[in-house]
Amino acid sequence: MNGTGYEKLLGDVAAGRVSVRTAAERLAALPFIEMGHTKLDTHRPFRQGFPEVVMGQGKLPGQVVQIVRTAHRQGHVVLVTRVGTEMGTILKRGFPAGRHDPVSRTFTIAKKTRQKHGLVAVVTAGTSDIPVAEEAAVTLDVMGHRVERIYDVGVAGIHRLFKHIARLRKARAVVVAAGMEGALASVVGGLVAVPVIAVPVSTGYGASFGGVAALLGMLNSCSMNVAVVNIDNGFGAAAVAGIINGMDRHV
Amino acid sequence: MNGTGYEKLLGDVAAGRVSVRTAAERLAALPFIEMGHTKLDTHRPFRQGFPEVVMGQGKLPGQVVQIVRTAHRQGHVVLVTRVGTEMGTILKRGFPAGRHDPVSRTFTIAKKTRQKHGLVAVVTAGTSDIPVAEEAAVTLDVMGHRVERIYDVGVAGIHRLFKHIARLRKARAVVVAAGMEGALASVVGGLVAVPVIAVPVSTGYGASFGGVAALLGMLNSCSMNVAVVNIDNGFGAAAVAGIINGMDRHV
Amino acid sequence: MNGTGYEKLLGDVAAGRVSVRTAAERLAALPFIEMGHTKLDTHRPFRQGFPEVVMGQGKLPGQVVQIVRTAHRQGHVVLVTRVGTEMGTILKRGFPAGRHDPVSRTFTIAKKTRQKHGLVAVVTAGTSDIPVAEEAAVTLDVMGHRVERIYDVGVAGIHRLFKHIARLRKARAVVVAAGMEGALASVVGGLVAVPVIAVPVSTGYGASFGGVAALLGMLNSCSMNVAVVNIDNGFGAAAVAGIINGMDRHV
Amino acid sequence: MNGTGYEKLLGDVAAGRVSVRTAAERLAALPFIEMGHTKLDTHRPFRQGFPEVVMGQGKLPGQVVQIVRTAHRQGHVVLVTRVGTEMGTILKRGFPAGRHDPVSRTFTIAKKTRQKHGLVAVVTAGTSDIPVAEEAAVTLDVMGHRVERIYDVGVAGIHRLFKHIARLRKARAVVVAAGMEGALASVVGGLVAVPVIAVPVSTGYGASFGGVAALLGMLNSCSMNVAVVNIDNGFGAAAVAGIINGMDRHV
Amino acid sequence: MNGTGYEKLLGDVAAGRVSVRTAAERLAALPFIEMGHTKLDTHRPFRQGFPEVVMGQGKLPGQVVQIVRTAHRQGHVVLVTRVGTEMGTILKRGFPAGRHDPVSRTFTIAKKTRQKHGLVAVVTAGTSDIPVAEEAAVTLDVMGHRVERIYDVGVAGIHRLFKHIARLRKARAVVVAAGMEGALASVVGGLVAVPVIAVPVSTGYGASFGGVAALLGMLNSCSMNVAVVNIDNGFGAAAVAGIINGMDRHV
Amino acid sequence: MNGTGYEKLLGDVAAGRVSVRTAAERLAALPFIEMGHTKLDTHRPFRQGFPEVVMGQGKLPGQVVQIVRTAHRQGHVVLVTRVGTEMGTILKRGFPAGRHDPVSRTFTIAKKTRQKHGLVAVVTAGTSDIPVAEEAAVTLDVMGHRVERIYDVGVAGIHRLFKHIARLRKARAVVVAAGMEGALASVVGGLVAVPVIAVPVSTGYGASFGGVAALLGMLNSCSMNVAVVNIDNGFGAAAVAGIINGMDRHV
Amino acid sequence: MNGTGYEKLLGDVAAGRVSVRTAAERLAALPFIEMGHTKLDTHRPFRQGFPEVVMGQGKLPGQVVQIVRTAHRQGHVVLVTRVGTEMGTILKRGFPAGRHDPVSRTFTIAKKTRQKHGLVAVVTAGTSDIPVAEEAAVTLDVMGHRVERIYDVGVAGIHRLFKHIARLRKARAVVVAAGMEGALASVVGGLVAVPVIAVPVSTGYGASFGGVAALLGMLNSCSMNVAVVNIDNGFGAAAVAGIINGMDRHV
Amino acid sequence: MNGTGYEKLLGDVAAGRVSVRTAAERLAALPFIEMGHTKLDTHRPFRQGFPEVVMGQGKLPGQVVQIVRTAHRQGHVVLVTRVGTEMGTILKRGFPAGRHDPVSRTFTIAKKTRQKHGLVAVVTAGTSDIPVAEEAAVTLDVMGHRVERIYDVGVAGIHRLFKHIARLRKARAVVVAAGMEGALASVVGGLVAVPVIAVPVSTGYGASFGGVAALLGMLNSCSMNVAVVNIDNGFGAAAVAGIINGMDRHV
Repeated sequence: MNGTGYEKLLGDVAAGRVSVRTAAERLAALPFIEMGHTKLDTHRPFRQGFPEVVMGQGKLPGQVVQIVRTAHRQGHVVLVTRVGTEMGTILKRGFPAGRHDPVSRTFTIAKKTRQKHGLVAVVTAGTSDIPVAEEAAVTLDVMGHRVERIYDVGVAGIHRLFKHIARLRKARAVVVAAGMEGALASVVGGLVAVPVIAVPVSTGYGASFGGVAALLGMLNSCSMNVAVVNIDNGFGAAAVAGIINGMDRHV
Repeated sequence: MNGTGYEKLLGDVAAGRVSVRTAAERLAALPFIEMGHTKLDTHRPFRQGFPEVVMGQGKLPGQVVQIVRTAHRQGHVVLVTRVGTEMGTILKRGFPAGRHDPVSRTFTIAKKTRQKHGLVAVVTAGTSDIPVAEEAAVTLDVMGHRVERIYDVGVAGIHRLFKHIARLRKARAVVVAAGMEGALASVVGGLVAVPVIAVPVSTGYGASFGGVAALLGMLNSCSMNVAVVNIDNGFGAAAVAGIINGMDRHV
Repeated sequence: MNGTGYEKLLGDVAAGRVSVRTAAERLAALPFIEMGHTKLDTHRPFRQGFPEVVMGQGKLPGQVVQIVRTAHRQGHVVLVTRVGTEMGTILKRGFPAGRHDPVSRTFTIAKKTRQKHGLVAVVTAGTSDIPVAEEAAVTLDVMGHRVERIYDVGVAGIHRLFKHIARLRKARAVVVAAGMEGALASVVGGLVAVPVIAVPVSTGYGASFGGVAALLGMLNSCSMNVAVVNIDNGFGAAAVAGIINGMDRHV
Repeated sequence: MNGTGYEKLLGDVAAGRVSVRTAAERLAALPFIEMGHTKLDTHRPFRQGFPEVVMGQGKLPGQVVQIVRTAHRQGHVVLVTRVGTEMGTILKRGFPAGRHDPVSRTFTIAKKTRQKHGLVAVVTAGTSDIPVAEEAAVTLDVMGHRVERIYDVGVAGIHRLFKHIARLRKARAVVVAAGMEGALASVVGGLVAVPVIAVPVSTGYGASFGGVAALLGMLNSCSMNVAVVNIDNGFGAAAVAGIINGMDRHV
Repeated sequence: MNGTGYEKLLGDVAAGRVSVRTAAERLAALPFIEMGHTKLDTHRPFRQGFPEVVMGQGKLPGQVVQIVRTAHRQGHVVLVTRVGTEMGTILKRGFPAGRHDPVSRTFTIAKKTRQKHGLVAVVTAGTSDIPVAEEAAVTLDVMGHRVERIYDVGVAGIHRLFKHIARLRKARAVVVAAGMEGALASVVGGLVAVPVIAVPVSTGYGASFGGVAALLGMLNSCSMNVAVVNIDNGFGAAAVAGIINGMDRHV
Repeated sequence: MNGTGYEKLLGDVAAGRVSVRTAAERLAALPFIEMGHTKLDTHRPFRQGFPEVVMGQGKLPGQVVQIVRTAHRQGHVVLVTRVGTEMGTILKRGFPAGRHDPVSRTFTIAKKTRQKHGLVAVVTAGTSDIPVAEEAAVTLDVMGHRVERIYDVGVAGIHRLFKHIARLRKARAVVVAAGMEGALASVVGGLVAVPVIAVPVSTGYGASFGGVAALLGMLNSCSMNVAVVNIDNGFGAAAVAGIINGMDRHV
Repeated sequence: MNGTGYEKLLGDVAAGRVSVRTAAERLAALPFIEMGHTKLDTHRPFRQGFPEVVMGQGKLPGQVVQIVRTAHRQGHVVLVTRVGTEMGTILKRGFPAGRHDPVSRTFTIAKKTRQKHGLVAVVTAGTSDIPVAEEAAVTLDVMGHRVERIYDVGVAGIHRLFKHIARLRKARAVVVAAGMEGALASVVGGLVAVPVIAVPVSTGYGASFGGVAALLGMLNSCSMNVAVVNIDNGFGAAAVAGIINGMDRHV
Repeated sequence: MNGTGYEKLLGDVAAGRVSVRTAAERLAALPFIEMGHTKLDTHRPFRQGFPEVVMGQGKLPGQVVQIVRTAHRQGHVVLVTRVGTEMGTILKRGFPAGRHDPVSRTFTIAKKTRQKHGLVAVVTAGTSDIPVAEEAAVTLDVMGHRVERIYDVGVAGIHRLFKHIARLRKARAVVVAAGMEGALASVVGGLVAVPVIAVPVSTGYGASFGGVAALLGMLNSCSMNVAVVNIDNGFGAAAVAGIINGMDRHV
């Protein structure tokens, strides 16, 4: 059952042409591939318009290689996040067509000639927020979204941000990655009309508490268009921003 | 300068027809109304497509009345959140055309015949999450979005959620309000392809720590389409979900 | 005094055949073996139906070897948890009949032909929860319980869990190991009628706070048959689940 | 579909006589009663052997009355927890056959002549832990379990506990309610062979942090048969202990 | 020994004209007035250039009246902070020349014709931060400093702040009072060259944790001229800012 | 068995004249009085040289009256702590010979002509720490210790403390009650040679977090003779200080 | 536009000679140098009287070298903080005229013959607070301020501080670096009339929680002239203290 | 001025023979040795009856060697705590007469033939608490106190403690070192009449939070003779217990 069929089914349910019972039955029948340690949800790309995403952290290299191989064979784009140096080397050796980016700590096997869609701005407060921002940017790129990077425009020298305000306002969604006090999310939120997905970054020291200060700042944003994802979760911010950027494709 | 003019200006900047200097100048020239205790940002409705929103909590009734009067005179839709019983009575007396809803703790002065747009689902785990969900639903309604309420479908009896899966999947954005462990956001996130804006709710007791347990659960969601707003911030969730729901209007 | 004698004594107390004073006296007379750094409670196997369990963490290898030797000489099954690579090598050298499992980080000297009893299901949300789940599974196995492993069935793709619902419902107790938001414990709790012993897992990052997010989620579970043990305490979950699974043996 | 039928169905699935698809379909077809604010899970009593349980806190009195009425009409035993004085009066007026107990803050409509089953000991460290312990005791009683209360036996005068050791060891499960340092759970855990369900109690002051000190103490118990529920969750502890106490009924 | 004499003494010590021993002796000889519950440090005004300051919170009205009377008799300016309605009424009755301000919760007995000195800007992010800002402003005023109030210029509508940038830059020290994410302190810090004393405000809800979010944001400010005082401590911020504003008086 | 007998017994055990078994037996045989909600440990006065102490908080007035009556009948000195206004009135009515002190929130029935022993200094940083200090002072007084009160000598005006340094150094133990930063405990600790029992006080606001700031400060004291009790636990500090003060009585 | 011109401009705005619009325009026109990963704020030295400051932590060595080179070419004094051994070696190799100090973990390129200004005292409680204090002292020195170091004068032996009281009182601002309970800031605050900038230090263990105990102690200081910066932020304390010390230069 | 002289002086102050002014003068005149990084308080041994104690952690080896040399030359007993392997080797090389104990992580230069005084019991809950307990035991031994070690008697097998109850009750002070839930302090506190100095130990995992669970448990002890020191602060516990044990020497 592909994505179109899926949406058709649920449309039928909504219209009363298919019973709830039948929909539930088909839902339970969604496919996955059993690998013992992992049950690869092969239906997710159809259900959520997403490539296969594997979090490398907490898995053994051998497990990741096996998952990537399985996903790749399904013909999907592949994205592995939180890839350390050792795992990156192993993956590159196993899949020479893939790309290991040490800054964003990602490994990707992307499709070549895909045209990019819409625009998502990825903004950082400082230089040390770049790795998390790059995890977001690579994710968006692999998912087929056009990305505008605006880095090191934190509020201590706010004129740097103002230089980029027009570029910023062309985006259909904005990802803001910031550590320390995370104030940039609120300032950007006040300047744009689209959703701002804020990612607290764990850089900093002392009372930044590994990103908690930025997290709390973002959750308490006085700008009403700010929503927040987990600390350092560049991937998650990109996922939400990408869905928003892609929404008119489904209209 | 109205909203159209604003977007035109920035388009001109992007196209090089207007200099950054000029844009910055106009930005600083954005209007507000000085009331001593408050500087009403009269440009925000244009900048962000939003009605005037006033948080009642932390303000004196007299201050709120003055802000509402000023905003109402500008001809805007008005929304006051966190309105207690006393403040609600005062506002109703001052603005008989308005509506005070004690469940959502809102006071609204809305336009009559506005047609609703798109669809946002507002979902709760339990009965006691309803006040926060209603703050979201009322906000969405005032903002002109169509709302589908799906209440009391928490994961302890997950078949109740499955009954509503087709309705849920017709929404263009989903707000999930849940206290306790907040698990519903992840489960809903795994079932839909659109952004899920999760609102932790402060109901519960003991180790719920006033909504912190739900907040952490939602931030750590294993579903990648979940973003989070502050505890009990039904309004904020609605703001983000509403912007997403309204995005195709700007295309 | 063996287990049977112990229960007989207390039965006698309950029936008034033996005075409380005598029972207390015998309690204080329970045996242990003094090793200076450790007082091996040789009576516990009788008192609680459990093999010798030694937590390797926080002890010197020499201390662990001495404890294992003493316990093994008593003729009991031996289980050492939190065994790192170095300690595992030392123990394997000292007790070649034992087994060091690097995934669960256990060292065991088990009895060969023991028939397994009842059924405990051990469930994980993701792949990275497996080490903790395996600590539980190995513990249960050594204690003589039959184990059913159901791994990587987290709520983001809940249809994977539904595939296993019938197997799950055959268990007499369920151990759920989950990091991140820990929502799986609640979902499983809503689907079974037996106790669910939830183990928060410290995998994750950012606002998972080393398992605290999962811990709070589980403590706030809306499913009423969920009880919780310490973060990463696969052994403890297995101990409680095993006692429950073994209860009809005492009837 | 009653409980027997349910278990039969799943047994059929396990035996391969019924397909997973069919089981999932029937699961989604589980009944509930829609009340707008609440979806009463009318199947839960069959699925988990439990009476209807309503948490009064966070609900309006009118909502609780409506839920109780609906549940009572189904012919089930009814238990409402966290019932304040006002709600208790309203419920007593509406259901004169029910019982409002101000100490445990419960409202119950129980069946008369039900014979009690097995034995669960409910133990407290101090006098101020009694309300939480009584919530557990009333829950157990309504569920049909025999209860032994052992109150005020905290570790500062541990000889008081020793007087009751024989009674304690006759229980098939033990609930320990303790605030302050919560040490009693570990001491009891070391004296019995059955599961100890520990309930941290929010009494205390200062660094007890509303029960957090007791919660952490219990989670870190050095007795391996201790599992923990949320602070002040006497009901939850009773639910788990009751399931354990009732397990041989299903054999 | 008056202030001049004090500074002279220490100058003498620095110049070697008076021994350390003698200075220490005189320090220990500093006067205070014993009232049993309170030891009024009558030397502080000389030592630190400050009026008598009494924190009303945590003291009985009778104690405060007694302290104010004693201080007033010494001929000093008097400032009582954290004065509730009841205490304010009692103080006003006892000292009709004083002034009770319910917004800042202060009671003051000031000198009439004192000319104000320098300039301190007191800035708030929102309307609900005004009470804390007013505690600062009243303190500064009583201490003889000129105050410029700039209220409700939070970062969600940052153009409101830009309107006041020239006024802001004329101040010799800035107090910023902000709740929620506290971002305003960083933004202001980046725009001025003088010290910014940031006061986190406890307004807000949910993850503001009573001002902790703002506190952490301010401690992690990326603007290097920001220092922080306790949550809601308008008085303390004013004390530090006032000392800075008054520094050239001592040159 | 009275106190003398008790110590004799243990001396016999130490000397080998009585077996451990016999001692344990007698320990379990220690008396208490069963009141249902409370098991009054009637042996504690002998075992620890202490009057009956009842914490009023968390108990119903009726329960406290019953406990006081029972203890009083045993002929002991009685001390009830955490006595609110209502409970104080009830106790005074029931036991006219007792004394209810609203500052320390204690109710005492003491013996008249008892001579005071040794010296314990009770020191506070500020006026608002006095209630906790008085709980300590009243406890010490009831226990027969001589008390020296030194109040309001916090470190911001440290010369006030120096005035009392000779009095302070005559004490055999010192109780320091301080809120806010709790620095006084360290300063006092550096000036005396006897144990300083530090009590954090919950007065303060903002980042004092109900006494946590003072608690942490005291736990991290750089003076090595400081030990700490729970926040606001004036009674506990007095208990430890009293035992120390009384030690030479047992020599 | 140099600093003088900048202040002139704002003076003109204040006097009404230049419009706000023009000032805002020029603000947005402030220069920075784009380096991709970093936007060097070349205007800050003029705006805030500060050398270029680069935080080494969180940046790649290559990035830092590039920033230092760019800043150095602008002719400014350069300060890099949080410089580890490896980065220090790389910087020294690249800029032989610079100085790498391993204790303060700084790298500086300073101007030779600059005369020092005023006096800032830098005080530590213990020996292990010296690295943070040295970060402050080096920063002040590079900024052109005269520094007086007073180390290891913690409150456990407070007579050591008293020896230095005259030196301390000659400073125009004081930096206090202290870990553990951080009490020294309050004691120093009570002895001087100038601002005390307190830096919590992360040394310590256990309940110091990486400097949180000291941070809370300092935020709750009973001395009203204490303001606080982030844990271990010696640079930030120096920045604020230096601005204060330099204030009369602008008069 | 030696200790005797010191006490005499203060006695004179108390008796009015010496003025407060003179005492304060002499206090400020207390000697220390300036080493730049450290001001060795050479008066402390007289003031507090203690050997020189140096915390190795946070100091450079060279600093520690210099401090030890200086102290040793004064003829005092020397104790260095928190001595790692490298520092231990350096110290042993520099002071061959000293002793480096890797378990307690101490370095000591003690006097040979000192007779031990009184009795302090040092008790641990488990084997992994021994390093902290040994820091206490070594400290006590160096200070001249007799020590009784009772290790691995945690509450899960409480009969092990009862075996040692007579030995325990002979001590004049008890140190209890326990991690995990820290319950042992309360149990021991209930069994003895002397002060129990409780040391939380940072062993454990998960929700032990590095000793916080034990710390909170001990602070909330229901035994009134328990006071607490910092996590892992074996030295501090020994200091307090030693002072208590030595009190009759001063009588």
